[in-house]
Amino acid sequence: MNTNVLNAFTQEHKQLLESELQTLVEKLKAPPNIKKAMHYSLDAGGKRIRPLLVFATLAAFGKDPKIGLKAASAIEMIHTYSLIHDDLPSMDNDDLRRGKPTNHKVFGEAVAILAGDALLTFSFEVIGTIPNEIASNETKLKLVMEMAKAAGSEGMVGGQVADMEGEGKNLTLDELEYIHIHKTGALLKYSVIAGALLAEANQSQLENLSAFAHHLGLAFQIQDDILDIEGNPELLGKPVGSDTTNYKSTYPQLLSLEGAKQALQKQLELAKQYLEKTGLTTNLLHEIADLVASRDH
Amino acid sequence: MNTNVLNAFTQEHKQLLESELQTLVEKLKAPPNIKKAMHYSLDAGGKRIRPLLVFATLAAFGKDPKIGLKAASAIEMIHTYSLIHDDLPSMDNDDLRRGKPTNHKVFGEAVAILAGDALLTFSFEVIGTIPNEIASNETKLKLVMEMAKAAGSEGMVGGQVADMEGEGKNLTLDELEYIHIHKTGALLKYSVIAGALLAEANQSQLENLSAFAHHLGLAFQIQDDILDIEGNPELLGKPVGSDTTNYKSTYPQLLSLEGAKQALQKQLELAKQYLEKTGLTTNLLHEIADLVASRDH
Repeated sequence: MNTNVLNAFTQEHKQLLESELQTLVEKLKAPPNIKKAMHYSLDAGGKRIRPLLVFATLAAFGKDPKIGLKAASAIEMIHTYSLIHDDLPSMDNDDLRRGKPTNHKVFGEAVAILAGDALLTFSFEVIGTIPNEIASNETKLKLVMEMAKAAGSEGMVGGQVADMEGEGKNLTLDELEYIHIHKTGALLKYSVIAGALLAEANQSQLENLSAFAHHLGLAFQIQDDILDIEGNPELLGKPVGSDTTNYKSTYPQLLSLEGAKQALQKQLELAKQYLEKTGLTTNLLHEIADLVASRDH
Repeated sequence: MNTNVLNAFTQEHKQLLESELQTLVEKLKAPPNIKKAMHYSLDAGGKRIRPLLVFATLAAFGKDPKIGLKAASAIEMIHTYSLIHDDLPSMDNDDLRRGKPTNHKVFGEAVAILAGDALLTFSFEVIGTIPNEIASNETKLKLVMEMAKAAGSEGMVGGQVADMEGEGKNLTLDELEYIHIHKTGALLKYSVIAGALLAEANQSQLENLSAFAHHLGLAFQIQDDILDIEGNPELLGKPVGSDTTNYKSTYPQLLSLEGAKQALQKQLELAKQYLEKTGLTTNLLHEIADLVASRDH
């Protein structure tokens, strides 16, 4: 494993993505305050794992990762909108996100809700702007529909509802997995699918990549739960122990900390097995999986 | 003018739309509570003006109005999401909508926000499900992009932001028009455009219909302001005088009640002039315009 390759890849494409996000919002003919609120959360940094998955999936097919720039931007907008809404007082009521005051703390609740709405809406328009040389109308329409499924009540929003309803209850492992497969897993999986659709993957490649992303999503979430116990608040940009404070069920609570670490390794292995089966040049995706499982923030 | 024709048309297509909305949400594999919240606001009735505009525009081209069913459903979902979010405590803080408790009063703020998010997201998927016999992928993609523009920060959301920022200020007529052209006008206009795109309208038809919808949207809003003074609270399903209570600028306030009524007639005339120019069979659209200007709720 050569993490320098991933580092260089990440740095180059993160920069591209961040400048694309800025340009896209800057061009909008909208009231200055809503644009400021959209910029604020989009520019707050973060790991940009979802865009990176789009780019690395394209690279696995030997395609130019840059053809995924619009799709990656749309996905990061949806991820950002979900963070803005999740942080609201009526949801998780968080004051800090990535070490900065949350959107509603700066712009007020009303503008925060609307900035989220605007980002979600804009993401679908951005998919539509993918040039015809990169994707056919059929592919773009598939990207729109799969994105809506991943983000909506059958995906991310459904997971958030289940998560809220599960607070204060002792969930089973199945219930916990339902939450994570939907709340974080669906959009992570869509990121890989979006790259695969743009690369014109065949059915078996789509299925194996989808299974890879499924297990990667679970690994991501288990590590999230572990970090809430063992993490460094300064690296995380938020206090640890919030799952306990919010009475949320977690993997360490259901499986013990040691059991959660084993489950994480198991998901990581499964993810890599499906990756192998694709027969593609998957070294970058492989490294991203390792990074997700060992990340400290 | 034969309002019986419009009445029969409205009744038939309202029923079709409402049963389609029910079926679409019922099929979702999502937590029961979010589906309930989505149903609650979608089923709350209302005039269904936007869907009716889709159907009547198709009829003007001699097309079967039913081919607009998915687009009309998507638009009504976006309209409904916007009402749910606008009613929230941090926005207009309304307890009643169409005579029923608002979504957040029944389901709580968090679920209300998420039900809105889910409806908005789902609307784009619904456009994608228009059968290929009805519209090409190119047309569907155009419908997606125009819908995103009409609903997002350059359209409806932008208008809502401007509306909130204008509260308590003495707006000029231009500022007031900016708000209404965006907040209510953009989605009304899109409803006509969606019908026209499905009917494969030519450029000049699109432009004239777009101008018709622009003036219709302004007429709609002026009548809204007039009803807030002269309306019957029982027919409206909400108290009158809320614009004054919320320190909102209105047409009657800027132009006097009599001046607002004149402005309404002027917009109605302009709308009809553009309708004439299309050379289409516009009797239903004509009657809808009259209805909008004379409605009592």
